[in-house]
Amino acid sequence: MGLVVQKYGGSSVADAEGIKRVAKRVVEAKKNGHQVVVVVSAMGDTTDELIELAEEVSPMPSGREFDMLLTAGERISMALLAMAIKNLGHEAQSFTGSQAGVITDSVHNKARIIDVTPGRIRSSVDEGNVAIVAGFQGVSADKKDITTLGRGGSDTTAVALAAALDAEVCEIYTDVDGVFTADPRVVKKARKIDWIASEDMLELASSGSKVLLHRCVEYARRYNIPIHVRSSFSGLQGTWVSNEPRGDQPMEQALISGVAHDTSEAKVTVVGVPDKPGEAAKIFRAISDAEINIDMVVQNVSAATTGLTDITFTLPMTDGKKAISALERTKDAVGFQSLRYDDQVAKVSLVGAGMKTNPGVTATYFEALSKAGVNIELISTSEIRISVVIRADEVNEAVRAVHTAFGLDSDSDEAVVYGGTGR
Amino acid sequence: MGLVVQKYGGSSVADAEGIKRVAKRVVEAKKNGHQVVVVVSAMGDTTDELIELAEEVSPMPSGREFDMLLTAGERISMALLAMAIKNLGHEAQSFTGSQAGVITDSVHNKARIIDVTPGRIRSSVDEGNVAIVAGFQGVSADKKDITTLGRGGSDTTAVALAAALDAEVCEIYTDVDGVFTADPRVVKKARKIDWIASEDMLELASSGSKVLLHRCVEYARRYNIPIHVRSSFSGLQGTWVSNEPRGDQPMEQALISGVAHDTSEAKVTVVGVPDKPGEAAKIFRAISDAEINIDMVVQNVSAATTGLTDITFTLPMTDGKKAISALERTKDAVGFQSLRYDDQVAKVSLVGAGMKTNPGVTATYFEALSKAGVNIELISTSEIRISVVIRADEVNEAVRAVHTAFGLDSDSDEAVVYGGTGR
Repeated sequence: MGLVVQKYGGSSVADAEGIKRVAKRVVEAKKNGHQVVVVVSAMGDTTDELIELAEEVSPMPSGREFDMLLTAGERISMALLAMAIKNLGHEAQSFTGSQAGVITDSVHNKARIIDVTPGRIRSSVDEGNVAIVAGFQGVSADKKDITTLGRGGSDTTAVALAAALDAEVCEIYTDVDGVFTADPRVVKKARKIDWIASEDMLELASSGSKVLLHRCVEYARRYNIPIHVRSSFSGLQGTWVSNEPRGDQPMEQALISGVAHDTSEAKVTVVGVPDKPGEAAKIFRAISDAEINIDMVVQNVSAATTGLTDITFTLPMTDGKKAISALERTKDAVGFQSLRYDDQVAKVSLVGAGMKTNPGVTATYFEALSKAGVNIELISTSEIRISVVIRADEVNEAVRAVHTAFGLDSDSDEAVVYGGTGR
Repeated sequence: MGLVVQKYGGSSVADAEGIKRVAKRVVEAKKNGHQVVVVVSAMGDTTDELIELAEEVSPMPSGREFDMLLTAGERISMALLAMAIKNLGHEAQSFTGSQAGVITDSVHNKARIIDVTPGRIRSSVDEGNVAIVAGFQGVSADKKDITTLGRGGSDTTAVALAAALDAEVCEIYTDVDGVFTADPRVVKKARKIDWIASEDMLELASSGSKVLLHRCVEYARRYNIPIHVRSSFSGLQGTWVSNEPRGDQPMEQALISGVAHDTSEAKVTVVGVPDKPGEAAKIFRAISDAEINIDMVVQNVSAATTGLTDITFTLPMTDGKKAISALERTKDAVGFQSLRYDDQVAKVSLVGAGMKTNPGVTATYFEALSKAGVNIELISTSEIRISVVIRADEVNEAVRAVHTAFGLDSDSDEAVVYGGTGR
């Protein structure tokens, strides 16, 4: 029995009852002979309350102080969890990100982990303690300032510690039963996936699936750490995410892992761009200078008569305004004709490593959409993903049609709650 | 203009408004050319709320985890204060006790400071920042665990930092205007003291005055740091506490500094103790083994006929039960006759270095009490203090009579709020 890292999100430790329930689950793993390291987020709404306080004292709180403030949240939940575990007769010690050796760069509010030196954690578990570590936080290598890791930070802390401690598995406890073949709120017959390859999970994460964030899966893939996403409310097996299937997992990958959708993006079309070298570069330099991350990019073949082409890309809806002003400023330099902005769009993505060797997938996908009366506006593909942009009000219908067409529907209706993993 | 350490208690930073008011005051000191280090307590009720949470998860929280939990409180207030100061256009950085170099022993919940290595604080203020330090907390020298300093901890942090940074003054901001010649809730005509010698302040603190705790005054006395106790609500000069008066302060000490009273003690009498060497030692060894701190001790001359004597001592009322059981267990070994316990008592103390050279003080004191019809049950004196134990229901009358008798009454009625300094 080796070392297990367990991560519990804010909804799992929202109150004293939740903390006691988590303590029981941790003790169970300990009783089964594992060494256990637990990573916790802040309790329920603590972070929101702290942010509210910050806004009351300053309209633009400094990054360093904001991190100092927010990290109080995990300090509370981790100390309480340690007390609850000790109350069950097992030894436990809590550690801040800094004490746990989570070393980051100095970018406050969204620091990146650059090293993990878990000497104190190793000693603590070797002495028989459950080690509890504050998620989401670290200490900067140069200035020794407290940093936070930004969105999905606690999951990343868990995976990083699992890698540094050479853990058997990193268990991510959340409020859903695992990763599903589609969002169960949309597709009643969505099935829980027992095992999914890391690369498929990465594509799902960047296509709108919210159970695991891309960043955390990428970290786990790089260090070959199996993730087990499961519910902190049920005792059920969840979804295993790993580079290769393990002994008891299917050796052959599913053709299609799942259907993801995303309604948080908008579509920008730059109309009438002169079709000559360097024009597209100017456009995307302007977008990049505005610090906007774009997603899909499509350029049509230019019309022979005019020598002009259209370039379309998608980006987070929240960056729409910024993108349009950035482009307006380059209008003369680029020489395009006009801009179109559309945020009534949705992206539907089909993900599966199996599609590499199965030529019929694209046809089946598009036929399913067509039969459902859904018009495709943009297409973009990777080796293991096909994404289309459609009208936002057709998204549910489209996801259901595709899910059925690829035989992903389960036999029974599942009743599950589906939600984000907090930070 | 040198370095100033300012300490603000929990009531001064109870909400966003309070924090902004404190920020303004800090900036004022900065504008006057001072380098400023600020020590803050947790906001208002934060500590109580955290304690409540701890009690919900465990009936007997571990010391280490309890300290980890409680220290979240200052983390919140200090980060918010830093944001509020930056919002006023001045640079500020917050530091945990550990970052500020407050090194303690390993006694959780009531650690003692054993060293202060304020290198980061010095650098921060030298770079032009206001440095904000979490009060009440430190890090243990051996295990590098987070510790808390117990009651009055934030005041002690402030004085310790002032000493380590060779500050001009340690300003303790509270919700009263300073130290008074008596508790203004009892004596309407009590006067604010402009300057008081450290040794007198020490006696007042151990006699029931709650504005400054003994521990913090003792630390300041040892390192010769002047303390200025003042209100965070008014801009008025408060009370200076120092070993020697400064240039603008009266060179000659007042005869009497003030009258303190304390109703939190109880009186235990061990009746019929054989008057021979070693008996008293046995009694107080039993009390000490029970970890009870006693205050006054009085032994009457033994009655010649019986060879028996009575030993009376006072102790915190909260330890009364424990003391009685400890003594009951030694009854046979000591051979005393019986025990009497009385918690309807009050201690009234007259403090003033002037009494060393003024033989009439004791007489005036007792005459004042006698005229007020107050019976004295016990008397105990130090070089600069005379304490008496009387009936609890006569304490207000006694304090007023003594205050008047020594000419301490002010000409006008003062209207002030008097309260504790939190931690």
